Parts: sequence; C-alpha cells; structure tokens
Amino acid sequence: MYYLVLPTQQIKLEMAYLQSMPKSVTIKLREKHIGGACQLFFRSSPLKIVRGIAQFMFDETGDRYLDCINNVAHVGHCHPHVVEAGRNQMSLISTNNRYLHDELVILAERLVKTLPKPLSVCFLVNSGSEANDLALRLARIHTKNKDVITLDHAYHGHLTSMIDVSPYKFNLPGGPEKPDWVHVAPVPDVYRGKYTYPDDSQSVELLGQLYADEVGVMCRKSKKEKGGVCAFIAESLQSCGGQIIPPDGYLKKVYEYVREADGVCIADEVQVGFGRVGTHMWAFETQDVIPDIVTMGKPMGNGHPVAAVITTPEIAKSFCDTGVEYFNTYGGNPVSCAIANAVLDIIEEEKLMERAHRVGNHLLNRCEELKHKHSLIGDVRGKGLFVGVELVTDRKTRTPATAEAKHIVNRMREEKILISRDGPDSNVLKFKPPMVFSSQDADRLVDTLDRVLDELKGNTRTVTNLKLEVRVTPIDDVNAEAVLKTNMTQLLKSS
Amino acid sequence: MYYLVLPTQQIKLEMAYLQSMPKSVTIKLREKHIGGACQLFFRSSPLKIVRGIAQFMFDETGDRYLDCINNVAHVGHCHPHVVEAGRNQMSLISTNNRYLHDELVILAERLVKTLPKPLSVCFLVNSGSEANDLALRLARIHTKNKDVITLDHAYHGHLTSMIDVSPYKFNLPGGPEKPDWVHVAPVPDVYRGKYTYPDDSQSVELLGQLYADEVGVMCRKSKKEKGGVCAFIAESLQSCGGQIIPPDGYLKKVYEYVREADGVCIADEVQVGFGRVGTHMWAFETQDVIPDIVTMGKPMGNGHPVAAVITTPEIAKSFCDTGVEYFNTYGGNPVSCAIANAVLDIIEEEKLMERAHRVGNHLLNRCEELKHKHSLIGDVRGKGLFVGVELVTDRKTRTPATAEAKHIVNRMREEKILISRDGPDSNVLKFKPPMVFSSQDADRLVDTLDRVLDELKGNTRTVTNLKLEVRVTPIDDVNAEAVLKTNMTQLLKSS
Repeated sequence: MYYLVLPTQQIKLEMAYLQSMPKSVTIKLREKHIGGACQLFFRSSPLKIVRGIAQFMFDETGDRYLDCINNVAHVGHCHPHVVEAGRNQMSLISTNNRYLHDELVILAERLVKTLPKPLSVCFLVNSGSEANDLALRLARIHTKNKDVITLDHAYHGHLTSMIDVSPYKFNLPGGPEKPDWVHVAPVPDVYRGKYTYPDDSQSVELLGQLYADEVGVMCRKSKKEKGGVCAFIAESLQSCGGQIIPPDGYLKKVYEYVREADGVCIADEVQVGFGRVGTHMWAFETQDVIPDIVTMGKPMGNGHPVAAVITTPEIAKSFCDTGVEYFNTYGGNPVSCAIANAVLDIIEEEKLMERAHRVGNHLLNRCEELKHKHSLIGDVRGKGLFVGVELVTDRKTRTPATAEAKHIVNRMREEKILISRDGPDSNVLKFKPPMVFSSQDADRLVDTLDRVLDELKGNTRTVTNLKLEVRVTPIDDVNAEAVLKTNMTQLLKSS
Repeated sequence: MYYLVLPTQQIKLEMAYLQSMPKSVTIKLREKHIGGACQLFFRSSPLKIVRGIAQFMFDETGDRYLDCINNVAHVGHCHPHVVEAGRNQMSLISTNNRYLHDELVILAERLVKTLPKPLSVCFLVNSGSEANDLALRLARIHTKNKDVITLDHAYHGHLTSMIDVSPYKFNLPGGPEKPDWVHVAPVPDVYRGKYTYPDDSQSVELLGQLYADEVGVMCRKSKKEKGGVCAFIAESLQSCGGQIIPPDGYLKKVYEYVREADGVCIADEVQVGFGRVGTHMWAFETQDVIPDIVTMGKPMGNGHPVAAVITTPEIAKSFCDTGVEYFNTYGGNPVSCAIANAVLDIIEEEKLMERAHRVGNHLLNRCEELKHKHSLIGDVRGKGLFVGVELVTDRKTRTPATAEAKHIVNRMREEKILISRDGPDSNVLKFKPPMVFSSQDADRLVDTLDRVLDELKGNTRTVTNLKLEVRVTPIDDVNAEAVLKTNMTQLLKSS
C-alpha cells in the first residue's frame, strides 16, 4: 500500500500543473474532435481527471474523489509495481508473439494455475471485446453450430459481433436488429426478473432451476431444429444488467442443458474476474461450474489494454486444425504480459482477494443496515467488492426509482464520491471499486449515501410543509424533475 | 537517434540475463499454454527476442538481428521518448474516456491536422481490427446499406466481422464462407493480377481504370439490386496481399463509383500509414483521394495497443444520432494517447517521413539493380519504406518462386537479417522496417540478399556438376525440398 501525503495547497498546485489547457478548452476540443457517441460521465458538467492514486482520483483543481466504480484500476490507480513493470519491459522489448518471450508463457502458466482443469490453453488479446469475439469464434469452429444463447440485458462488448449477443445494446431504440441465431434467456434476477423471491418461490434454489429451465427449453429446441447449440455466453455475475447475482445452482443446471445440446459454455469474467468476488479468483467458481471458455479483460492490466481467452486443449485444437493462423498484432506482447504479471503479483502479495471478501462483506452489511432505514432501497446484493443497491419507489410493486438514482449519483459526485448506476431501468447503484478499497472508504460511502437519502426525504417533507425551495439543481434530468413535480402536486393536494 | 555501444561479450551477458528460463523451457510452456493457432515465426527453430533497440532486435544469446519487417516499431524499438511518455502517464493516471483528459484531445487534434478536410472526428480504440470493425459499423449506420466491396487477398483484422471482409482468411481451406453481402474485387496488381503491364496495356494508368471498372460493375449492380453500397474497404497499399502498389488513378475512379452507389470509402492505413510511404503521412494521399473513413493502428503506439478511426462530422453524427453509446474501456485512455503523441513527436522531430523517402528510394534502387542481376526477381515495387520484391521462377510466365522465397527468408535469418514473405503465393519478399532504418542498413540487406541469391544459382550449378551436397538444411519446407529434388532429377537426366 502507498499513500500520498501532501498539504492540500501543494496538491492543488500540482494538479493544476498536470493539465495542458483549461478545462473549457479540453471540452471544446473534445466536442470538435471526438465522436459524440463517446459519452462523458456527468455530461452536463464532466470531470477532468489528471491524477489517480490507489482508490482516489484527482481533478485539475486538486479535488480528490473516492473512486467506487473503476473496476479496471483493480490493484489501485497507478500502482507503482505496475508502472515499474510497464516501464521496464517497454524499455527492453515490445514485439509480437511470433517470437518467443518469457513474459507471455509465464503469464499463461500463472493464469492457467488459477483455473480448474481442463482450462489450460490461452490466447492473449487487447480487450474484453476482442476476447469475447474470439470466444464465439472458437465455439463456432468447435461445435459447428450457430445458435447462441445470451441473457437479457447482457453486454459483451462494443464490436459488431458482440452487439449481436448484447441485448443491452440491440434492445436500445437506435440499436440494430437481433440476429435470428441469437436467443435471449431471462436474466436470473430474483428481485425484479421473470421469477422473483419470494413471490414465485420461497426457495431461491428453486428459482435457479426455473431460470435455468428457460435456457433448457431453448437448448432442446435448437438441438431438435438445428442440430445443436453453439454457445451459452454469460457474465458469471451480470454487471451492466444491474449487478445481478444468479441464484445458487443456476449455472450448473444451465451448463448441463447447453452441453446436452452439444454447445459450449462461455464464462465472461471481463468485469467480475480476478478475485473481485472475494471468495474465489473467478466468479463462475461461486456457482461451482467449469466453463469451456473463459474470457477476461478489464482488471487484467490495471488499465493497460490486455485481455485473454482461456479454453480447453480440445477446443484450441479444433481452432488450430482449421489451419487458419490466429495473429493478433499486440496480443501477448511482452509489455502487456509483464503488466498483467505485475497485477497478479499484487493480487497475491497484497492479499486483495481476502480484502475484497472482508471489505465487501462490511460494505454489504452497511448497505443492508441502510435498507432498514430507507424505503427507497429495495434490494442490496453483491459478492465481495461487486455490490448493487437497487432503488425502488415502492417496495411492493418494486417500481424502479430511476430519477432518484440519477439524483443520488450526481449528489454523491458533489460529495466527491464516484458511483454509477445501471440495470435496464438505470436504478441500481453500482459499487465496484479498486480492490484496495478500505472499510473506512466503505463507511464513508455508506454514511454519505445515508445523508443523501435523508436529504431526499427532507425534500419531500419540505414539500409537505409547502416550502418550495426544493433542491432540484443537481437533478438535471427532465424525468426526475417531472417525478418531483408530480410528487409535490400530490402532496399539496393531500395536505 | 540513439545507439547501444557495448563490447560484444557484455551484450551476450546482458541478453542472457534478460530471460527467466532457458529457451527450451519457453518453447515447452508455449506449446502447453498458448493456442497452436498462434504461429511462431521460423516455426521449426523460433527466435527468442529479449531486447530491441531502434532497427535491431537481440536474441537471448546476444545475437543482433536487423529488423526489416517490424512496421509496428515505427520510430524504432524502445524509443526512449516513447518509453518515457508511457512511464510518465502510467504513473499519473490511466482511466477511461468518460472523463476529460488533455492527452486524448491533443492526440485527436494532431491526427486531424495530418488529414484533409472533412476528416475531423476521432474514435480511439485498441487495435487495427477494432478500428476496422468500427469503420464498418459507421458505414452501415450512415448508409443503411449492407454490401461491402473488398479486394482479393485483403486482410483487415482477426475479428469475426473482419474475417468476413478478408479473402486472405476466408479463402483459406479451413476458413469460413464468404458472406453474400461481401463482394471481392480483383486486387490492382499490375504484375500478377487480372490485368497486367505490359500485356493488357502499355499505359499503367489505363490499368487503373480497368481495375476500377471492376468495382464500378459491382457498385452499379448493388445500387440496382439492393439500393446501394455500404462501403468499399481497402488498404491504400495492399500489404498482406503482397506489397501491392495500385496504378495511378485507381482509387480516384473507385471512390467515384462507390459514391455514385451511395457507399462510403474506407482507407485502411493500419499497416501503411504514419509516413511510411515517405512522400505523405497517409498512403491514400499518393492516390490523390479523400476517404470518408480512415483507420490507423500498428505504428501508432510503436507497439502499444492503440488505434483510431477518423471520419467526417456527418458520419459521426449518424452514429451519434442512433442514441447508442460507443464505449471502449481502454480506447483513448491517457497512457495510450500520451504514447501516440510521443510517436507523432518523433516522426516530426526526427523527420522520419523524409528519411523513409530517402532511404526507401535508395532501397528500391538497390533492389532494382539486383533485379538486373538475378532473374529470380520478377518485380520490385514500393513507396518509401514499404517495399516488395516478387520472386518468380520464370519471368515470362511469372510463375511464383514460393520455395525459393521461403529459403531466402530462412537464409537471411542465418545472416541475422529478418525479412518476411507474403502475397497469395507467399513469393513476395516484404520490407517494412522501423522508420529509423538507414541507407547502410538497406545496403546490408541488399548485399546479403545478393549473396543469398548467388548461392541459389550456385546450388543449381552444383547440381549440374553432379555434386549432390546441395545445401538444403535451411529449407525446412517439404515443398521446397520437393521442388529442389525435381529440379535435381531433371538436371541429372539432362546432363
């Protein structure tokens, strides 16, 4: 661990020095030269980040933000061991993997050691999207089938081939059409999914079976009509879909169905892998299954573009037997591998998995406490440092509190705490901080959230007292304003 | 510029120290844990490279190789300015582009300044493959058409969507089928293509027209039958296809046809951009055209995974108007951008374009001289430091000398010079060295090639003299051996 101990004034000076131009000019140049489809966080008043240290980020004015969402900066922003590994290897050699290099084989061997047998053959690539694209290629070549089963709200990457299997993208109004070989199974969300607890079953395990059976039906249909399934692809815990923790037994049953239909099972660990769940290195292990293909990315290089696909010798052989070379210019270059090896060093040396388990449990418990206090919180769920807090306007109907979630994310930013929200209704607060996050950080996060939730109640009370100075400034969302206005009108009527 | 001045013995010691395990162990681990589809260069006796400096690479024994093929190490292996930029930014912050950062907008502005109007909107990604994938997505969304025209033997990347438009891959025996919306136009190869000089025309420009008309026919058909073309995608100079320089006027005419059919023109500059052609920053400029979308990659980060798509405000707006966010986790992160900015610094400061022009011309002239001496050389072509030497067993029939090309690549490696071969018949020697390549390096390359070509003649003479100690050891290719044996038998018969 490492800390920055500097007087505030000096930090402010140093941060100002780290920008090349005033923020207004950066914004202007960005508007001119960066595609508008690349959206900024806090669009109406974006952050300019010039420095990162461990779980903190600094803007150009020296303001320090607690980063509760950057799962890419896995071992902490700018960890010196990662920086050193990168610098060292960059100054020695960086070339393609048509030449032998020790960093590549060391990384492959280390990754394989974290996985159950027979997952032992690696392909190094540059991004989670590239990894998932290759995973599907491997599946297609190995099974010779076409049908792919994906989960609703899933996101597997920005590439054409990945948008095909990402309802998170193709279900958007301007999104492309779903290909006919893609089948969307309901996401095993026991809080607001197709089958919920306790409405549909008092046993969560039975819910796992119900959700898995949906995949089973698709598998049998595909087997009957088209000879078999190509692949089932899913994040082991769904991230973009709203921090979903599938019920126990779900993946085990799904994998059975998929294999009965001759398909392969792809575990997308791009967001949730590398020990984030605390109890295991890989999130699929919490479901007691062994995938045929595992993809990993984001945290792998702590921000450096590196990702991987790991599969069985059998599947790798099918791919090799086509005779078509797989060449990825940067994939497995010595710098990317040295950096990924440094990340593995730190996960081990700083016992970050244990930390994620301990701090994650503390964070979950504190969020649970909050739930008892604030009715806006409908559900608290998570594993390790992967936590979701789902906001609802009504606990019975479980109506998503989308505007409130947006307000809270903006208010937290004012409090110098960065959180985000996700899920199909954007009403789930997401916490997936760098793994160096501490219990004190968790306390600060929850205490501040508590205060912001209190304010929301305060606003409502203010309205009932006919004092109309409601703090709406941070709510720059038209819907949020509408919601508040409706509430106000109703309250005024009833008062 | 910088040099390594060390006694040979010390270099040997230092290089040995740079490996973690003996080469045999590296090979064993690689065989076990890296997919067999990832092929090694010199498969039967691969190189282990532990160090790179400028245009040289060192193996673990301290042997120094002249690198004539690594166009990725554009400004020279491990250029200290690139290393410093990477280290510096890595130690400050690396996060995603949802936050503002100056390095991103500075890079975008600098890249745009190198391009003709209206190319002014950038998307930063991690690899040439990702760039080409996004380019096609942009084209699809903007034109709402589906048909894509690509060139024969073209290679645009390792992703599923790119293999669809890469005959270099889908034409292989184990490759996938060509999708019906992909149309393959003949590559404008005036030496061994559909229309050749001087057989089909004494005017090379007329050949440009003939080749362009092939695309014209496709465009009119697509417009008539399907309402229009989506895109024409081509490397401005075809690299994997065998270092092809299209005849003057080719792209100008093609772009006209494509635009008449409402399609957009994508210039793939991933391999040939960033000043390699010497006279211009971008190879499309040698054809006096302005594409609608330009993709760039490989040399952009001197080995660091960074790439970009640059397009017009109009096309970027169509993409943005869908409302679907484009988010690429690592794309445009401050480290990648700082490194790309450093590469641009060096291209400017070390006047590498002028150097590519000067050294490239020298290399081309020297290769031309060699052609007069060795009938095995059928064609010499190139622009700047992008040069191809096509080998043929018979200049009249232009029969590809595939086995000889393989032999030469292996023999040059023994001489510590790394070259490669490409083209549909793998008979074109490729030179695309780091841009710091010198005239002395070019002389060494050509002089050695001269000697190796002399040896080949020598071998033939040896055979005619019934001395059978032909040097076949470096030819580890079964076909090459077969060719030699056939030749020997025939010679023995005729003698």
